[in-house]
Amino acid sequence: MSTATPAPMAAALRRDGRGMAAAVRRGEARVGELVEASLARIAATDPTVNAFTAVTAERARRRAEALDRACREDPAAVAGLPLLGVPFAVKNLFDVAGLPTLAGSKIEREAAPAAADGLLVRRMEAAGAVLVGALNMDEYAYGFTTENSHEGPCRNPHDPTRIAGGSSGGSAAAVAAGQVPITLGSDTNGSIRVPSSLCGVFGLKPTYGRLPRSGSYPFVASLDHLGPFARSVRDLAASYDAMQGPDAADPACAQRLLEPTASRLTEGLEGLRCAVLGGYFSDNAGDLARAACAQVAAALGTTRELELPDAARARAAAFLISNAEGANLHLADLRRRAADFEPLSRDRFLAGALLPATWIVQAQRVRHAFARQAAELFGRVDLLIAPATPVPAPAIGTEWIEVGGRRLPARPSLGLLTQPISCIGLPVCCVPVWLPGQPLPIGVQLIAAPWREDRVLRAAAVLESAGVVRAPVADGLPG
Amino acid sequence: MSTATPAPMAAALRRDGRGMAAAVRRGEARVGELVEASLARIAATDPTVNAFTAVTAERARRRAEALDRACREDPAAVAGLPLLGVPFAVKNLFDVAGLPTLAGSKIEREAAPAAADGLLVRRMEAAGAVLVGALNMDEYAYGFTTENSHEGPCRNPHDPTRIAGGSSGGSAAAVAAGQVPITLGSDTNGSIRVPSSLCGVFGLKPTYGRLPRSGSYPFVASLDHLGPFARSVRDLAASYDAMQGPDAADPACAQRLLEPTASRLTEGLEGLRCAVLGGYFSDNAGDLARAACAQVAAALGTTRELELPDAARARAAAFLISNAEGANLHLADLRRRAADFEPLSRDRFLAGALLPATWIVQAQRVRHAFARQAAELFGRVDLLIAPATPVPAPAIGTEWIEVGGRRLPARPSLGLLTQPISCIGLPVCCVPVWLPGQPLPIGVQLIAAPWREDRVLRAAAVLESAGVVRAPVADGLPG
Repeated sequence: MSTATPAPMAAALRRDGRGMAAAVRRGEARVGELVEASLARIAATDPTVNAFTAVTAERARRRAEALDRACREDPAAVAGLPLLGVPFAVKNLFDVAGLPTLAGSKIEREAAPAAADGLLVRRMEAAGAVLVGALNMDEYAYGFTTENSHEGPCRNPHDPTRIAGGSSGGSAAAVAAGQVPITLGSDTNGSIRVPSSLCGVFGLKPTYGRLPRSGSYPFVASLDHLGPFARSVRDLAASYDAMQGPDAADPACAQRLLEPTASRLTEGLEGLRCAVLGGYFSDNAGDLARAACAQVAAALGTTRELELPDAARARAAAFLISNAEGANLHLADLRRRAADFEPLSRDRFLAGALLPATWIVQAQRVRHAFARQAAELFGRVDLLIAPATPVPAPAIGTEWIEVGGRRLPARPSLGLLTQPISCIGLPVCCVPVWLPGQPLPIGVQLIAAPWREDRVLRAAAVLESAGVVRAPVADGLPG
Repeated sequence: MSTATPAPMAAALRRDGRGMAAAVRRGEARVGELVEASLARIAATDPTVNAFTAVTAERARRRAEALDRACREDPAAVAGLPLLGVPFAVKNLFDVAGLPTLAGSKIEREAAPAAADGLLVRRMEAAGAVLVGALNMDEYAYGFTTENSHEGPCRNPHDPTRIAGGSSGGSAAAVAAGQVPITLGSDTNGSIRVPSSLCGVFGLKPTYGRLPRSGSYPFVASLDHLGPFARSVRDLAASYDAMQGPDAADPACAQRLLEPTASRLTEGLEGLRCAVLGGYFSDNAGDLARAACAQVAAALGTTRELELPDAARARAAAFLISNAEGANLHLADLRRRAADFEPLSRDRFLAGALLPATWIVQAQRVRHAFARQAAELFGRVDLLIAPATPVPAPAIGTEWIEVGGRRLPARPSLGLLTQPISCIGLPVCCVPVWLPGQPLPIGVQLIAAPWREDRVLRAAAVLESAGVVRAPVADGLPG
């Protein structure tokens, strides 16, 4: 779109994270070079993209030095690290030692700096990755656009006049812009899958309770999921494998370690019964979303269509639960300093504080019934295919979109297709489709039964190998 | 208390349920005789006690005839039935084929008669028991006194000027009055344990999710438990064993069958680490409740005292959740015909419909935290001892009670000691203590970790064998 000179990009950053780690291991690249390349790319592109809210250059350089020293002096000690030397960044709701955890807000700028890194940051670094910064998001994760009034909007690397999606907009944009190969975000109602879809990168929302949330800023405890973004499926799998496992401090976290998924990516579709989600998921998808879904279904060899009849009710339930739990979390500040909240979400928070309890009781009943409906479906199928967003990235400031001839409010409607799925905690891999002749990507959700991340990642790997989905670095970015 | 002539009572009814079944099996009694004795006792005492709201005499006689015929013609087919010929009755929130399920209300008198018996009624009858009627309760189970304005108050068989407790008042009173040896009730915040305590009978509130609730009228789905009342621990165990097990129609019901408990009652205290719950549970108990608790602790050989520091918060949480979920259940009728509700609970229901959602969010957080607090305690102890009610049965109409020098509202305060425990679904056996020189009984809760009904029943059996607890039939009832 842009006619400005593209920012130069180091060859090292064209690799995915696993490729970088392999290069370091083989002595073809130093960690310091990867980190400098990442910092340079951020410096060149972020004035346009606005993905980063903090760059931890000094910390990254210190850590790169230590890793490079280890590579020289004790290579056996680091050879096994799956993400050795891979620069990564995290949505600014993850604790980063020394930084206040903003969660996209103005209010938290007054918070004390975090004393320690969040647990997933530590687990990523334990796998060899190198943190380079914190990323833009919707305030308190309550939005689908990352039009953050305090930090400015995050811009879509494939077209900076458009939104990156949200609430983990910075996380998706940083990967699409080639700033880092892997980022972490969070998904309560679609906040990993929406920006993944709009920015054309891979995103994984694991099963609710799979990745521990200790050391991250919550939004809706009963719906909050953390997860990775990447440009390759193997990077998603490696990150997920590095981060999963018990955590006594997160009461929702499953107290067991599952089998790693990375080694299973080559298993193909053997034994996976696939089907497309029709009904609600077709009715609320625009033409491009439906076309992307059909392309993925064809590549997975299915024409079968199934329905989840209560999807619309489940979405309404997720809205109400988010509204009430979110409002409860911020009740004190809403009373004391409502004017300091993001204008785009302030009124929703205030409304949440006034919801009657009986609505939440009903929402929880809907949620439980919908989970049973989905469980029944997963007796007959292993993988469900659904569009991730109704449309590709709208322009920043868009108030209305058209979907299937209906005029819908743009911001909430971006979550139409993701909310029913996260409402019942199912694992989803969002895969990026580039339709012929289209300048912008759009994502498709691959959905499985709880704890079956292996299935969504296997299917994503099949699609990636076949070239049906891909996450190219945006090449039109001005420096 | 009463000076009227005591109602005559058949010797058969002096036996407990297991004793009756044994007598039938040995040919010493016919089922028809047991049923007629029960019906006669109801006819003689219920004008005073007001425990029954319906007597299913015809049905009971037909069934008695069939069982007696089976005993004659095919004794092997019925010999194994643990409750062969035992008359029982159920709180009128259980479906009984042909009767409207009142749940203590006036409104449900207009409901269609139930098409089939509730699942637990069927399981009791499958074990050989014979249903003889339905029992008085607080309207929609929302109360601790069974001062039912539509049916009249249920009266305490040991002193008919006093309440039987509630909401399962009829269930406890029918056992204490010797009308039937076993009844079923429900417990959301204490509705089995409070009347068990005030009427001096054994009551079991199993783990949340243990006994299925299909075919019963709900109150608070996330807190509702069903369970038995009896005059002996072995009757409780036999009833519980007969009723436990999976039920696909109740989503909260555990999908597995546990080991029977009846065969474990003789195991004694071997391996049971016991302790008294102090703090909140001592502060909110009157002198008699504390004395009863001390007597049980001494008999179980413990002087150890432990605390659950968040008990008061857990009780508040249970109040709010009950208020909101209960109001939601009756929302349509509250809008349309509030005047038809029980005056004692109508305003609470209306208040529940107006609660803000954020309060419920906070209540659920408290509940989860309290469950973790209790789980931690059960790493150090197997059985907790706590009083069941702050005081013995107050007079009907009592508005205030005094506990530890504080003047408390009588009706809600009867649940002070039971609410925190049911809030997190722990199994409890309420055992009846008769303190020297006291005319009225008072109950003590034996509490274990989830799914350990065997432990509370074993401890209750030890206390019963030692004569520390007992459930005598009230002998002063006028005919």
